[in-house]
Amino acid sequence: MYKIVLLRHGESTWNKENRFTGWADVDLTGKGVEEAREAGRLLRREGQVFDLAFTSVLKRASKTLNIVLEELDALWLPVEHSWRLNERSYGALQGLDKAETAAKFGEAQVLAWRRSYDVPPPALAEGDERLTLNDPRYASLPRAQFPRTESLKDTMARFVPYWETVIVPQILAGRRILIVAHGNSLRALVKYLDGIPDEEVVGLDIPTGQPLVYELDASLRPIKRYYLADEGTIRAAQAAVAGQGRAKV
Amino acid sequence: MYKIVLLRHGESTWNKENRFTGWADVDLTGKGVEEAREAGRLLRREGQVFDLAFTSVLKRASKTLNIVLEELDALWLPVEHSWRLNERSYGALQGLDKAETAAKFGEAQVLAWRRSYDVPPPALAEGDERLTLNDPRYASLPRAQFPRTESLKDTMARFVPYWETVIVPQILAGRRILIVAHGNSLRALVKYLDGIPDEEVVGLDIPTGQPLVYELDASLRPIKRYYLADEGTIRAAQAAVAGQGRAKV
Repeated sequence: MYKIVLLRHGESTWNKENRFTGWADVDLTGKGVEEAREAGRLLRREGQVFDLAFTSVLKRASKTLNIVLEELDALWLPVEHSWRLNERSYGALQGLDKAETAAKFGEAQVLAWRRSYDVPPPALAEGDERLTLNDPRYASLPRAQFPRTESLKDTMARFVPYWETVIVPQILAGRRILIVAHGNSLRALVKYLDGIPDEEVVGLDIPTGQPLVYELDASLRPIKRYYLADEGTIRAAQAAVAGQGRAKV
Repeated sequence: MYKIVLLRHGESTWNKENRFTGWADVDLTGKGVEEAREAGRLLRREGQVFDLAFTSVLKRASKTLNIVLEELDALWLPVEHSWRLNERSYGALQGLDKAETAAKFGEAQVLAWRRSYDVPPPALAEGDERLTLNDPRYASLPRAQFPRTESLKDTMARFVPYWETVIVPQILAGRRILIVAHGNSLRALVKYLDGIPDEEVVGLDIPTGQPLVYELDASLRPIKRYYLADEGTIRAAQAAVAGQGRAKV
């Protein structure tokens, strides 16, 4: 039996401002730092130990991981960063206020962009400064493949090969793995692991800063999945995430 | 021509308490965090860019590196940790107060232990709790090789092979390297790069939190070496380091 732990980064400045973030590299808020610290403390209290960690190239995830590792007294742990763990690209919506976008395009359209499996938001135009093709962290990503926008299906299509070719061999080698990523890259992984149908993945809310444990059998099929925190904490955290993107009345 | 940047971690709690630290895994002080942050800001102001960083498995160095990377907006940077970059083991002196040790053994003996090339301090006994053989960060280090004490010569003997086999190939591949390490592992590297004679290395003081640039030719021989900070800042920082280990009168 194998075990992995998934963690969504703490609150970011744009979560707080209710703006679409995607690949924009925004920082954690003070609350997000505290969420990360609390996640690290919880992992430590529960005796969770890791050999290797994976995260995205975005600072809100990398910083969450560093804070967690500090609380685990494991700042020496090997860490692999990959753009394949990044949040789903929100294309031309990146930076826009969710409530305003909902008021403009309608809640149904915004919900479709946010929660449908295969509907991408409008793409970033060539020359848009949000298309950070020259950022050195994306040097290994061919320019033509740099996402201009993504549906959850697209996110899954670039995350799953990394899972299969990089993370799975480490799990099978017996290494205890922590993955710190984003709402939609984790949703893609959970959909893949649990075989969630396309139309149901819409309802899947992974709260920020809450360690989610997956126990896997020898074929890496999930046997058990559970949050480390108690149920009340998780329900409140999920409700907070699900409430984003509503037009303010 | 190649360029590398060396950085000694910021002040640790045991630097502040004037105790021998070695492989003890003590944290940065508030001042140490600020030194790291200032080093990161200075590197950023000077336009220093990196592709890869190396550090030890000790938290004072790892944390310094994380703070520097945050200031450089490069938390995504690949980082390699190795015990071979650790501080010199101070053996049975680890945890002892430097001034008390000087009062007990005499300043000359303490200076010999601290600053001679090949005189190791007394070794840690088997069963001493400071001999952290079971710490998972040392899983790749055969128990018999775990240092019970080290002279600077010993530190050099385990650091230089890592430099030659791991770091040098990366430099030759054109990657811009940052090394965040410790007073004596950096002293070992500088001795090696500059060919400093055994008896002169005693006088070499590398201040904490001050980025030290080495420009290297195609054979990795130093052409130029300089601190990024101005000379007055460096002289004051070196005097502070050199003053440690004196008996308090």
